[in-house]
Amino acid sequence: MVNRIISLIFVWKHKAIIKHMATPNNKKVAIGIDIGGTNTVFGIVDKKGNFLTEGKMKTADYGEVEVFLAALNEKIRLHLKKLNEKVEVQGIGVGAPMGNINKGTIEYAADLPWKGIIPLADFFKQYTKLPVIVTNDANAAAIGEMVYGGAKGMRDFVVITLGTGLGSGIVINGELVYGHDGFAGEIGHTSIRPGESNRQCGCGRKGCLETYVSATGIKRTTFKLLGDMTEDSELRNYSFNELTAAKISEAAKKGDKIANRAFEHTGRMLGFKLADVVAHTNPEAIFLFGGLTLAEDLIFEPTRRYMEQNLLEIYRGKVKLLPSKLNTQNAAVLGASALVWNNNK
Amino acid sequence: MVNRIISLIFVWKHKAIIKHMATPNNKKVAIGIDIGGTNTVFGIVDKKGNFLTEGKMKTADYGEVEVFLAALNEKIRLHLKKLNEKVEVQGIGVGAPMGNINKGTIEYAADLPWKGIIPLADFFKQYTKLPVIVTNDANAAAIGEMVYGGAKGMRDFVVITLGTGLGSGIVINGELVYGHDGFAGEIGHTSIRPGESNRQCGCGRKGCLETYVSATGIKRTTFKLLGDMTEDSELRNYSFNELTAAKISEAAKKGDKIANRAFEHTGRMLGFKLADVVAHTNPEAIFLFGGLTLAEDLIFEPTRRYMEQNLLEIYRGKVKLLPSKLNTQNAAVLGASALVWNNNK
Repeated sequence: MVNRIISLIFVWKHKAIIKHMATPNNKKVAIGIDIGGTNTVFGIVDKKGNFLTEGKMKTADYGEVEVFLAALNEKIRLHLKKLNEKVEVQGIGVGAPMGNINKGTIEYAADLPWKGIIPLADFFKQYTKLPVIVTNDANAAAIGEMVYGGAKGMRDFVVITLGTGLGSGIVINGELVYGHDGFAGEIGHTSIRPGESNRQCGCGRKGCLETYVSATGIKRTTFKLLGDMTEDSELRNYSFNELTAAKISEAAKKGDKIANRAFEHTGRMLGFKLADVVAHTNPEAIFLFGGLTLAEDLIFEPTRRYMEQNLLEIYRGKVKLLPSKLNTQNAAVLGASALVWNNNK
Repeated sequence: MVNRIISLIFVWKHKAIIKHMATPNNKKVAIGIDIGGTNTVFGIVDKKGNFLTEGKMKTADYGEVEVFLAALNEKIRLHLKKLNEKVEVQGIGVGAPMGNINKGTIEYAADLPWKGIIPLADFFKQYTKLPVIVTNDANAAAIGEMVYGGAKGMRDFVVITLGTGLGSGIVINGELVYGHDGFAGEIGHTSIRPGESNRQCGCGRKGCLETYVSATGIKRTTFKLLGDMTEDSELRNYSFNELTAAKISEAAKKGDKIANRAFEHTGRMLGFKLADVVAHTNPEAIFLFGGLTLAEDLIFEPTRRYMEQNLLEIYRGKVKLLPSKLNTQNAAVLGASALVWNNNK
C-alpha cells in the first residue's frame, strides 16, 4: 500500500510530457522503445534510421508498470532536451513481448515483471498526445528488417528473434501479419511434440520452441547434456545462474564437445520447426536476429541442415536462412521506431 | 513406348477444344475442376455458385497426365454441349494437390499417379485459350468458403481439408496466402515431432500431420490400436484395404472402444497442430472440411479440446473451430470455380 502511494506520487511528480514540437523546419523523428525482460532500450530516430540519441533502463527494477513508465517518460524527456537540433516527434513505437497492436496492450507477457493485461498505450496518454503503437518486439524487428535491413524489397519473409525467449514476425505480401486478435507470430510458443514430458515454459505450457531455442533454451540444453554426457567441459565450472549463451558459444568455438552438442541440438529443434513455418507461409527468406546469432555458423549451419532435412520437397533449397542485417545492439529500437513511419505511410 | 504412342494419338484425336463462346446474353460460367488422388470431379458453375452440370472420372485410371487431360477435356466438352442454355466460359479453375498458382503446375504430388513437375496449365493450352488457374485443392476450398460458405465477411481464417490427405488454405486480410513460390498452406506436411521414429508419409518424410489426421491417418491409427489394445471390436473383421474412415465412424457411434479411441487420437493430433497454426497467423476461425467431418462431434469435440489445451493463453476461447458450410459433395469444385471469379475481380 505504501509502495502504491509512493509510486503514485512518483507518477504525478514526473508528469512532464514528451512534447510534440511542431515547427516546419524541425527534423521529424520517431521514438522507438524496446521493452525486454531485462532491459528497456529507447532511441530517438530519424526517418533514415539514424539515431539522434539512445538510452537504457532496467525493466526488472520496476515492479509496477506505472512507475516504470513515469521513469521512462522522464528519461526520454531529458534525452530530447539535450538534443543539439530541434525535432518534431511523430509518434512512439513500442516493441514489447505480447504487445497487441489492436488494443495498445501488453497481455500476459511471461518475461516481464508485470502480469495480466497492461493498457500500455492508455498509460502513455497521461504523458503524450502522440500516437503510441504497441506490438510484439519481434514484429517491430520484422518491420525494422523490411524498412532498414536485409528484407528491403522482399514481400514474404519471417524474422525470428533469439533473445531470452524466441519471438517472430511474419510478413506476407509486404504486410506484417497481425491476425484477427493482433497476436499473430508467436512461433516461440509452437510445440516441439505432443505430450506432457516436455520442458516447462514460462507461458505455463510445456514443450514450447523457445524452451529449446533461445539464450535460455541453449543453457537448459547445455545443463541437460552436462548431466547426460561424461566428457570434460569448461562449462562444468558454472552454475545455472552464471552460465550464458555467450559462454557456451565461446566454449563451442574452442572445440568443447558439450557446447558443440548444445548448438547442434538447438539448431536441430529450430530447423525442425522452421520447416513447419515454411509449410505455413512459404517465405522467401527467414532472418535470424539477436544475441544467439553472434555464434554465426554454430547456430546457422545446423539450423539450415535440419530445416532442409525436414522441408517438404517442393520447398527444398529455396528458402534463404539469413542473419538479420540490422545491428543487433539497436535493431529492436530501430524496428520500434519504424512502426511510426509504417503507421504514417 | 507403345503406350506413349497410343496416348499421343489419343491426345491428337481429342483435340476438340472447350470453346469460349462470347455472345452478350450468354450466361457467364466458370469451369471448376477438383483433381484428387482417387477421383477428378468437375462442374460448370455460375457466379452465384449454381451448378449447371457436373461430372466425374477416375484419376487413378490414367497413368499418363496427357491422356487424363484429353479425356477430361472431352468430358467437359460433351457436358457443355448438352447444356440447355448458352454459356460463356470465363476460365478454368483447377484445385489439385501441390497445385502452384504462380506457374500453373502440379509439383511432386504424392497422392496423384503422375510424378515430378506437371505443367498442367501449359498442357491445357492445346485445348483452350481460357485462363487456367491452378492451385492447391485446399486453397480452392478456402476461396470457396470465402465466396460461398461460412467464411463470408471473414478476413483471417484457415480451411483444413480432411480427405485422403490433409490440405489447408490460409487467408489473411481477406487474401489467400500463396507464399513466395506459390506453395503456402501445406499444414498436412508439418511434423508431429522431431525424429525418425514417426509414421512414413507419402511425401517421403516421416511424422507429417496427414499421416495421423486424414481418412488414411485414422485408418492407420485404428490398425495400430487394434494391435495395441485387447478390446473386442467389429473393426477386427476388416483388412487394411477394406477399412474406411466411414466404417470407423459408424463403429464409434455404436460405442466401439477402439474406434472411439482412434477418433480421440486423431483429434489430439489435429488439436495439437492447430494450436501451432493459431500461433502463426492468429485466425478468427478454422474450418474443417471433407469426409472425416461427417463424423461431427467425434472429430470436432476432441480436436477443440486438445486445441484449447495446447493454445497459448492469449488465444484461448477465441478461435472458432467450425464445420465447412459448403456441401462436401461439390465444395472442392465450387472452390475451384471460385478461383476464376476471384482472379477476375
